[in-house]
Formats: sequence, C-alpha cells, structure tokens
Amino acid sequence: METGPVGDVELRELGHLVPGARLVTDPDIVAGFVHDQVTVLPAGRPLAVVMPSRTEDVVAVMQWATRHRVPVVPRGAGTGLAGGATAIDNALVVCLSGMTAIREIDPANRVAVVEAGAITADVDRAAREAGLMYAPDPSSVELSTIGGNVATNAGGLRCVKYGVTRDSVLGIEAVLADGRVLSTGGRTIKNVAGYDLTGLFVGSEGTLGIVTSATLRLLPLPPRDPVTVVGGFPSLVTAAGAVSSVVAAGLRPSLLELLDHAMLRAIDDWKHLGLSGTEAMLIAQFDDVDADARAERVDALFTAAGADDVAVSTDPDESAQLLEVRRLAYPAAERLGRCLVEDVGVPVSRLADMVARIERAADRHDVRVVTVAHAGDGNLHPTFVFDSPDGTVPHAVWQAADEVFRGALELDGTLTGEHGVGLLKQRWLPDQLGPVGTAVSRAIKDALDPLGLLNPGRGI
Amino acid sequence: METGPVGDVELRELGHLVPGARLVTDPDIVAGFVHDQVTVLPAGRPLAVVMPSRTEDVVAVMQWATRHRVPVVPRGAGTGLAGGATAIDNALVVCLSGMTAIREIDPANRVAVVEAGAITADVDRAAREAGLMYAPDPSSVELSTIGGNVATNAGGLRCVKYGVTRDSVLGIEAVLADGRVLSTGGRTIKNVAGYDLTGLFVGSEGTLGIVTSATLRLLPLPPRDPVTVVGGFPSLVTAAGAVSSVVAAGLRPSLLELLDHAMLRAIDDWKHLGLSGTEAMLIAQFDDVDADARAERVDALFTAAGADDVAVSTDPDESAQLLEVRRLAYPAAERLGRCLVEDVGVPVSRLADMVARIERAADRHDVRVVTVAHAGDGNLHPTFVFDSPDGTVPHAVWQAADEVFRGALELDGTLTGEHGVGLLKQRWLPDQLGPVGTAVSRAIKDALDPLGLLNPGRGI
Repeated sequence: METGPVGDVELRELGHLVPGARLVTDPDIVAGFVHDQVTVLPAGRPLAVVMPSRTEDVVAVMQWATRHRVPVVPRGAGTGLAGGATAIDNALVVCLSGMTAIREIDPANRVAVVEAGAITADVDRAAREAGLMYAPDPSSVELSTIGGNVATNAGGLRCVKYGVTRDSVLGIEAVLADGRVLSTGGRTIKNVAGYDLTGLFVGSEGTLGIVTSATLRLLPLPPRDPVTVVGGFPSLVTAAGAVSSVVAAGLRPSLLELLDHAMLRAIDDWKHLGLSGTEAMLIAQFDDVDADARAERVDALFTAAGADDVAVSTDPDESAQLLEVRRLAYPAAERLGRCLVEDVGVPVSRLADMVARIERAADRHDVRVVTVAHAGDGNLHPTFVFDSPDGTVPHAVWQAADEVFRGALELDGTLTGEHGVGLLKQRWLPDQLGPVGTAVSRAIKDALDPLGLLNPGRGI
Repeated sequence: METGPVGDVELRELGHLVPGARLVTDPDIVAGFVHDQVTVLPAGRPLAVVMPSRTEDVVAVMQWATRHRVPVVPRGAGTGLAGGATAIDNALVVCLSGMTAIREIDPANRVAVVEAGAITADVDRAAREAGLMYAPDPSSVELSTIGGNVATNAGGLRCVKYGVTRDSVLGIEAVLADGRVLSTGGRTIKNVAGYDLTGLFVGSEGTLGIVTSATLRLLPLPPRDPVTVVGGFPSLVTAAGAVSSVVAAGLRPSLLELLDHAMLRAIDDWKHLGLSGTEAMLIAQFDDVDADARAERVDALFTAAGADDVAVSTDPDESAQLLEVRRLAYPAAERLGRCLVEDVGVPVSRLADMVARIERAADRHDVRVVTVAHAGDGNLHPTFVFDSPDGTVPHAVWQAADEVFRGALELDGTLTGEHGVGLLKQRWLPDQLGPVGTAVSRAIKDALDPLGLLNPGRGI
C-alpha cells in the first residue's frame, strides 16, 4: 500500500488538479505556515502549502493525498494555542484562509452560512447588520477563522452566557480523508435524525475531515449596552468565593473574568494602573434589560465575599475602560518573555483549589505563571512565562504544566476548556479519556480516516 | 462465529450472572415490554426482559449478549414515539426503569448525576429543591426516564428557550456492546478534550451503547411565574407570520406553541371551549423579569399579524388555564382514534409552507390530521388519526406521512425534531443524511458495535 516519497511529479500533478488554488513550495513562504501561536513547539518541514478556493479544490487535494499517502495538516489563520496546526515533515499544509465567503445571512431563521476561512469577527459584523450576533468570541476573534473555531470548539468571554462554538453550529460541510463531501445538520434548531455528526466534527481538530463551511446559529442582540462590575479582592479565595455566590444566585453574567495577583502585577508593571496591591480582580458584565439590578446584586455579593473595593459602571465608555484591564492581560504577559498559555477547566466550586495548585506548581518549579480565568465557567488560562534561548519550552515549565494538568484532572476538571488538545496536551489526553474513552475515540478516528492522513499527532 | 439459538441454558446462565437483576421470561409479562407508544408498529417476540439494578448488571448482560450473539433492545418507560423500543424476535429487552437513583444534586456547580431510569420530572423536582431546574420537558416528563430522553435527545415545550436534552447533558456513562464501560465528559461546562462522545451518544437511540447514568446541567429557576399570551388567528398563514415576527423581534419566549384548526376542533368537540371558529391558535409564555413588557410586545405583534383576538395573563392560575388548551391536544386526538404522532422540523420561516403541505397530504389521501407545533423552533407534530381494525397503520396514512416527510426535507427541514428516527422513520433517514452521511454514520456504528447487537433496525 505504501508508495514512494512524494516529489516534484506528484506536486505538479496536484497543481494541475487544483488550478484555482494557490500551491506554494518555496521554503521561505512555506515556513510561514508551519506554526500556530505555539511557536515553542518544534515544527516539521512540509512538502508544500495549498490554499483552496472552493470545496472542490479540497476534494481534489484529499483524493490526491489519499492516492499518494500524504498526510495533511489543515489550518486557518494560525491563531491556535495548542499546536493543532503545527506542520509535520512531508505533510501538505491545507490552508483554508482563502475561502472567506459569508454565503448567506438568513435573519428569518437566524442562520449564517459561511466558508471555513471567514474571519469570526466578520461573521459577527455581518450578523449585526441584520440585528443579530454570532456569539463565540475567542480572544483572536479579529484574526481567527470559523474553520479554526469549529476545529477547536472555540470559546471566549461571552460563552459563560451564550455558549461555545458547538452551541452555535447547526451543520457543517467537510471533506473526508478520501475526498468525499459530508454535509451534516441543517438550518433547523432541533434535529435528531441520525447521529450528531455536526457535534462530533466540532472540536475534532481537523482529524476527521476538513471543514469547508458551516451553518451557524445567530442570536438576537442583547437589549442594551453592558453594565460592568469590577471588584478588587484581598485574596484568591475570597474572589473565588464571590464567583461561587454569583453563580449560585443565577445572575447569568455575559462575562465573568478573574485575574490573579501575578497577572495584575504584570499589567501594572507596564501600564501603572495601581493594581499591584490587589490580590485578585473580578470583572463581570450584564447585558440583560435588568442589568442594573443584577449589577447591584453583584456589587453586594462581591462586598459580602470580602472585596476591598467594587466599581460599577453603566456608561459604555467607562465599561470598556474597566474591561480594558482584561484585554491587556495577554500583551502584558508577552512583554515578560515567551508564553505558554494553558487552558484547564474545573467545576466552578474548585476554582480556588485550582488556582492554589497552579501557584504551588509554579513555586515548586520556580516558574513564572500569570493567570486569567473565564471564572464563570471554571476555565483558567495559567500562562507560563519563560526565557527560551533555544526556542523550546524549558523542562521546568513542562514539569509545572504537568502538575497543573494532573491537578485539573484530580479536581474533576479538563485539560482544555476551549483551546483544544493539539500536539501540546496529547500525552495527557489518555489520562482524561480513560482506556475505554481512548479506544472508542480511536475506533471512530480509524473508521473515518483509516490511513491516518488527517492531522497526524492530533486527535487521538 | 455464529452460535446456535439461545435457549433455557443460556438464559439460566444470564440469571446467574445478574443475581441482583430481575429476569423475566413469562410471555405474558414480556408482552408488556415489546412496545413503546407506537403500538401500531408490529413487535417481535423477545427471549426475555432483564431489569438491571446497577451498571455492573448491564456489563454482565452485554458480555453475555456478545458471547451468545443476542441482540438487545434497551428501553426505559416506553414513552417513545418512534418505535425506538419496539422489541424484535429473539432479542433480550434491557429495561433500565429500575435504576432510578438521583445520585447527586450539586448546586455549586449546577450539576445532577442520575441513573438512566430516573424519571425526568423527579430530576426536575430534585433540582427545584436546590433552587434549580432541569430544563428539558418532553410531554411525557412525568413518565419518561432520563435514559430515554438521552437516547432520543428529547425536547419539549421549554426547549425553544432552554435547549434540548443534548444541551443539558455534560457527560454519560454507557455500557458498550462488548460490556466495556465508557465514561464521557464531566462536570465542567466547557470541555474540548477529545471527540464529543457525549453528544454522539445523545440521540443515538441505544445503538452505540446502553446509557446507564448521566451528568446533567441544571439551570437557575426563572425569576418569575410565566406571563401567557394567547392569540386566535383567522388563518394559518397569519399565525405563522406572527411566529416569524416574534422570532425576528428576539423576544425569547419560554414556549411558543401553535394549534391548527383541526386540532382546535378536536379539543372543542370534547371540551366545548368555543374554539371551533378559530383557524389557528398561538400560545406564548415569557418568564423573564420583564415578561410583562415582552408579552405586551407580543400582543401588539399578534394583532399586527392579523389576530382576531389576543388575551394576556400574568395570573399563574389563569396562565395555567390558557396553557391547558395545549395540554388537551394529545388526549383530544386520542379520543378520535389510533394516532401516529409525527415530528417534522423546518426552519421557522417555512412553518406556514409546512402546515400547508401537511393539510394537502391529508386531503389527498383522505386522512385525518390534527397538528400542534413547537412553533418557536419550527418543530411540528402532525398527528394522523385513523381506525385500525387490524392494529396496523393503514396504507393511506403511510402515503400521507411519506408526503409530509418528503415535504419537510424539501423545505430544508428534518424528519424528526425531538422524537428520534426509531423504526418508524428508518426508511426515510438516508434521504435526509445523504449517501456520505449515511456511510459515515454506518462506519461509526460498525466501529462501536461490530456485531450489530445494539437495538437492531434503529440508528443507521
């Protein structure tokens, strides 16, 4: 079954098969497509990059890849944080960034049909022109593509109220390993005809097929600008307690973010906002019609939980300023050195335990960690900051990360809330899935991609 | 590989393997476990019924079934409406109704862990004691089990606002065909570690494994009693237009139901409520803090769409009375004869088209059809009413149903919104999934149940 190494002849054949696609073999250009945001993971040397302009191109690519047993690494904008798009040796990189069409906005049914390369924020903007919104808002929303969001089941700040990408995907079109085109779902809200292939493909990181388009659910716009509540806390434990009381009160914030002391100090070292005395900060927003009343209750709950100070703003500009601290988090971390952004999740009640474990792991291995969390759904992003003279992740960082991952699993949590497993967390995945979950996942992968061509090293 | 027919020896072996389970072979008792609600589908003669009392029993059952190549038909309360639990010849019926434990209500994380046989309404009541609710509310909520709800991805009235069963399932425990125990998901809200096996099993109708327990997401209780709006319309087209305007206005009703003239007449013939002059009725409820304002807007929208009369009530008792008409729908239909309750879904904008197709199909084949719809999410339940001297579905009804199913697919809809495919709609499923969707579904089924033992004839 094995064929010989793929060379110029086969690549020329590919070029003829996809005349409308861009096929790049120049190593200097190809080198720009071998990483996502995890540049500290070593990347292989792919054969080429192909940029399809339509589904038929992807079909031809996968038929060619199957014929010549060429592994493919699908990618979009490369904003991933788990090495889901890290290239491997002798693979073909299939970059969907050129397929950007927003084919349809259907306001009557609150549905959008978009190609995989459409930028997430563009889809949201198109929806807003029709008085609707596309809810998932990963931090990379202005760069990331819908295809990448679908591949990783991306989350974001808003998903504490509006759900993750899977909650917004009604159907997909995907090209399978052998070039067949699979269409799933549709534009009905409810649909229980057959297995949930849509949900299976969302979050599958390009290992079951290459998603070429998606039918997305749009939501009505919130009835008002958000009201923002910011609380400074004397300890992480009191802040975590405040999160629990907001959740218990059923207040449904549209975002509920936590920043730890190390992160606040990193921001303060840069922007001098006077945050260094604060051990933990919570930022909540509400966008319901009764947002003022909800914010007032949160003010009281923050205070009761032990907040040193609480600020509430109904003014859109001031709200944006209060949220700005949160938006400064990643750039502030990146000023300090190379970053490995992690993504564990725990039940909300274990938030304080998890932060304590992160801090212990950092101390034990003498590694700098700054943490921001989508606290409302227990999803933490401990960010390991380090020097990397040789461009790789130091051993001590991996040791600390290992403790963090194991800690999350011990707390009934998950290795990844919204970034995906990628290459980065592959070695821990069987610990979370268990032997049967691993075997079942492997059986599904083998059934759909028997030659193992789709994004090898990812998935299972 | 094939073994001989299973007889008394093997059944005695099974009895020894599951000493804590009830094993029934008395044909008179077994006969009570061969149907779900679709009694017009012919059922086979199973070998026996086994009622496990714990997961380990189900493991032993499936190991035994695999060893002896015995097909199994899993079931709960038997409230299904698609023949998902119809027994087949020489199968073992595995009835989960005895596994009723509500193992845990975890208010801090808004999670419940329950066994498959727990009654849906009991789970909701347990959640309410903790100030929370379990959202999915199929009509059979007081009888149906969580296991059955998971198997069919059950919906209900509330799901227009609160989502279907899949939206409320965070994880499952299931016994696979060979007896291995699969645990998926967990109690984190966000989790993208590995394929979404939880979502795959929800709605898989017992064809991939036997769900023994589920980790469920609970929601905060609504802040107030619902406000109810009822509108009587001079035509289906005007009522459908009103639905579209409610959806377009983003008003998020907690239910939005449609009853057609035939259904209203059936209720009126029984209860004499003076509904016969109404061509179509809409019932909406709102449970937000600003429900009064929303109801007022709906009143205006109904009127603008052409309603003959609109009634609004904020009084809980009066609200319940207004909703009572909806609750009378099925019993009113059952008074008229045998019923085949259908379950097509269309994009909301095609609601009027779909109702028109239903009426045309009924006229053309001279079949009585009464229709109620979860209009807010385009899910219709045309109910075919007929005499059945021989206990089967008359040919004319199948012909009319065939037109309805094909019509739904032509309108970008689905064969089933919330009941499942079961045996009933199996022959139409490939039309909806297409050849690739069918092949992929079949590959997954074969990978997980290579001997085809789990609920044969269902799934794919």
